[in-house]
Amino acid sequence: MNSTAYRDIFDKCKTNEGYFGDFRTSGDDYFISPVIDSIPGPTIQYAGKEKVMWATNDYLGLASHPDIRDVSVDTASEWGVSGPMGCRMVSGNTREHERLENELADYADKEASILFNFGYLGIIGTISSLVGRDEVIIMDKLCHASIVDAAKLAVSNPRNIRVFRHNDMNSLEKLLKTVNKTRKGGILILTEGVFSMTGDLAKLDQICELKEQYGARLFVDDAHGFGVMGKTGKGAAEHFGVQDKVDIYLATFAKAFAAIGGFAAASQEVIDWIRYNARTQIFAKSLPMVYVKSLQKTLEIVKAGDENRNRLFEVSTKLTEGLKNLGYFVADTDSPILSVYVPGGDLSIGLPWIKFLRENGVFLQAVMYPVIPKGMLMFRIIPTAAHTDEQIDFTVDVFRQLRDHQKMQLDINLKDVDRIYSNV
Amino acid sequence: MNSTAYRDIFDKCKTNEGYFGDFRTSGDDYFISPVIDSIPGPTIQYAGKEKVMWATNDYLGLASHPDIRDVSVDTASEWGVSGPMGCRMVSGNTREHERLENELADYADKEASILFNFGYLGIIGTISSLVGRDEVIIMDKLCHASIVDAAKLAVSNPRNIRVFRHNDMNSLEKLLKTVNKTRKGGILILTEGVFSMTGDLAKLDQICELKEQYGARLFVDDAHGFGVMGKTGKGAAEHFGVQDKVDIYLATFAKAFAAIGGFAAASQEVIDWIRYNARTQIFAKSLPMVYVKSLQKTLEIVKAGDENRNRLFEVSTKLTEGLKNLGYFVADTDSPILSVYVPGGDLSIGLPWIKFLRENGVFLQAVMYPVIPKGMLMFRIIPTAAHTDEQIDFTVDVFRQLRDHQKMQLDINLKDVDRIYSNV
Repeated sequence: MNSTAYRDIFDKCKTNEGYFGDFRTSGDDYFISPVIDSIPGPTIQYAGKEKVMWATNDYLGLASHPDIRDVSVDTASEWGVSGPMGCRMVSGNTREHERLENELADYADKEASILFNFGYLGIIGTISSLVGRDEVIIMDKLCHASIVDAAKLAVSNPRNIRVFRHNDMNSLEKLLKTVNKTRKGGILILTEGVFSMTGDLAKLDQICELKEQYGARLFVDDAHGFGVMGKTGKGAAEHFGVQDKVDIYLATFAKAFAAIGGFAAASQEVIDWIRYNARTQIFAKSLPMVYVKSLQKTLEIVKAGDENRNRLFEVSTKLTEGLKNLGYFVADTDSPILSVYVPGGDLSIGLPWIKFLRENGVFLQAVMYPVIPKGMLMFRIIPTAAHTDEQIDFTVDVFRQLRDHQKMQLDINLKDVDRIYSNV
Repeated sequence: MNSTAYRDIFDKCKTNEGYFGDFRTSGDDYFISPVIDSIPGPTIQYAGKEKVMWATNDYLGLASHPDIRDVSVDTASEWGVSGPMGCRMVSGNTREHERLENELADYADKEASILFNFGYLGIIGTISSLVGRDEVIIMDKLCHASIVDAAKLAVSNPRNIRVFRHNDMNSLEKLLKTVNKTRKGGILILTEGVFSMTGDLAKLDQICELKEQYGARLFVDDAHGFGVMGKTGKGAAEHFGVQDKVDIYLATFAKAFAAIGGFAAASQEVIDWIRYNARTQIFAKSLPMVYVKSLQKTLEIVKAGDENRNRLFEVSTKLTEGLKNLGYFVADTDSPILSVYVPGGDLSIGLPWIKFLRENGVFLQAVMYPVIPKGMLMFRIIPTAAHTDEQIDFTVDVFRQLRDHQKMQLDINLKDVDRIYSNV
């Protein structure tokens, strides 16, 4: 990632290079890694005061569900947090791991599934095990860091990674046509189901048509769609009615399932291959039992009812309406994530806004260049089923104060947003 | 990893290619991923019977320590297994995370440390954040899969990864000389402290001399040394008295600490850099509180006494003596891991031996080509402080039965072992 070569590899640590270099060299501990000493929920304790929390991915509000907590306590008293010791292949496989895998495969409408310790590890392990030399990866420009790393690890020749404009089907088809002319090996298309930063959905229906037309395979990382999107919460592919056409469906448990770990679901043959070839899982300890058992309960709760999902979308809609009424531009996506764009996203301009929100009781994350174009700032707001109407009203009111107190200009140039969402 | 290109990337799943391809296509579920439904300890339940377990890395016998279990239960009842939600930078940082980092830095005699979710993620994140374009990695040939992946991810030009013969200081110095002639950037040497498969220690004293002589930096993955080696359990570098010379010390909690996660310890400046640049941690959920609190207790126990460490080495010595008396060749290493080499390590010859051991009550792992040269098999035996003298005697007796019943030839050609341990 570093463009400069240093005689001593540590010399770069004295510079302001790298991600967040300005924050690091300024020794910031306000916006980066704030200390939050309270259990997950719609409000948190921060700097001794209560804040309404809009920055955690606990979409269904299950992070503090008493039934899941009970299972985790019971499992910890029997198993501790140590077991099983060792990797699945040697000493870390149990009936409960296999049971959870079967239940996940069933929920995802696939033949089989495999558990991973972390979403990051699952993505790296799956993609790098499946894509070989002379095979080609075609990926959306806004794919998560883990997918970018996975692609880099999978191919030996960087030219075998092709990137299409975010959600731009013309750009994707153009690449498929080009690659098809010369390719010696297969093609794997990589996308997210719900894009975490921008909140929009991959056009999975159109991508599925294209991948069939050009003989490619499709991998979907649905970290933010799993449990959230679709009629029964199966994710972004269910939302588009193409669950059966996604060749490899991968999701993490770190968001709506409020745990750690993840899984990939696909045909039996493909999952078997991943199980015997994904280095990140073969050569690492098994997912702890305390998570396996808790996740069985979480899946049961997610499958049992739609109430949490309905409430989640209700919260999202109410908050969107409140902010739009104030003049804020909220991107039109099908996901519950709110992407609120305001002009003037320079660090020096944007930081006082975030500080104002936080000091007045609203905790959220702001996204700036390079994720979005220069000159804009995006407030990324994650609603959950656990938020109350009072918390929504309170938040809208703080946004009103922000607008007035900071004399914010709210008119967005739609062309700027267009550069992010090619579908707007 | 795959040499063949397929028109459909899934076609490879129908072949016997890849790691363990023979096992996969044969549908083996006996040697690969056996179902073990009991909590970690010196014995396990397998296929309805008790077996003495020599295949888990619970070196200090802490996997079922009641005090650690109590902390995990208390933390789960307060925090569940969900918290904190989100990555450290946004919403996943707590005072307890920072406290554990300070305690780990203190134990490792370094200025600072950073927590990781899994050893694999820590290794990938640390190395790929520190090594930039035109900088060079020089690594031991037997480094773990995670280190190999990290190196691949870090450099843009594969020629910037140089591999020296396992633990061969002439080979390392030759590479340092060659690289020093032309290099534009810095050098990072990668090694393990205790090599997991072969059980020998990196010659850290000599490596430290060389890295200083040639102006390189040293990264040590001490997964199997942390808590185990050295006078106070600080690891392989303490064993050699060069703790202060290791530039980046990394260990996982998955072995002696019987948990998940890991940490890197180094100077404040370097840890700050890693904290703001290691993508695997920046873009992934924070280490769960149930682990953070449990690990604080584990570290306290590890620091408090040497009894477990003494017992571990006692078990290792007793088992080694017993096996040597039977005529088995046990490699001479300073670590507690037993590497027992026997001739004739073909899969068809070796599997009946493992089966015999397992059916007679001894559960262990066998290592074959390509980790060790063809024509040999290695029984990898991991002693723990929790094993009893009776379990040792029982195991030695089963090895006697194996030798006699299977009419095993035990004389090893020392040249074959020499190909593994350049120092024997």
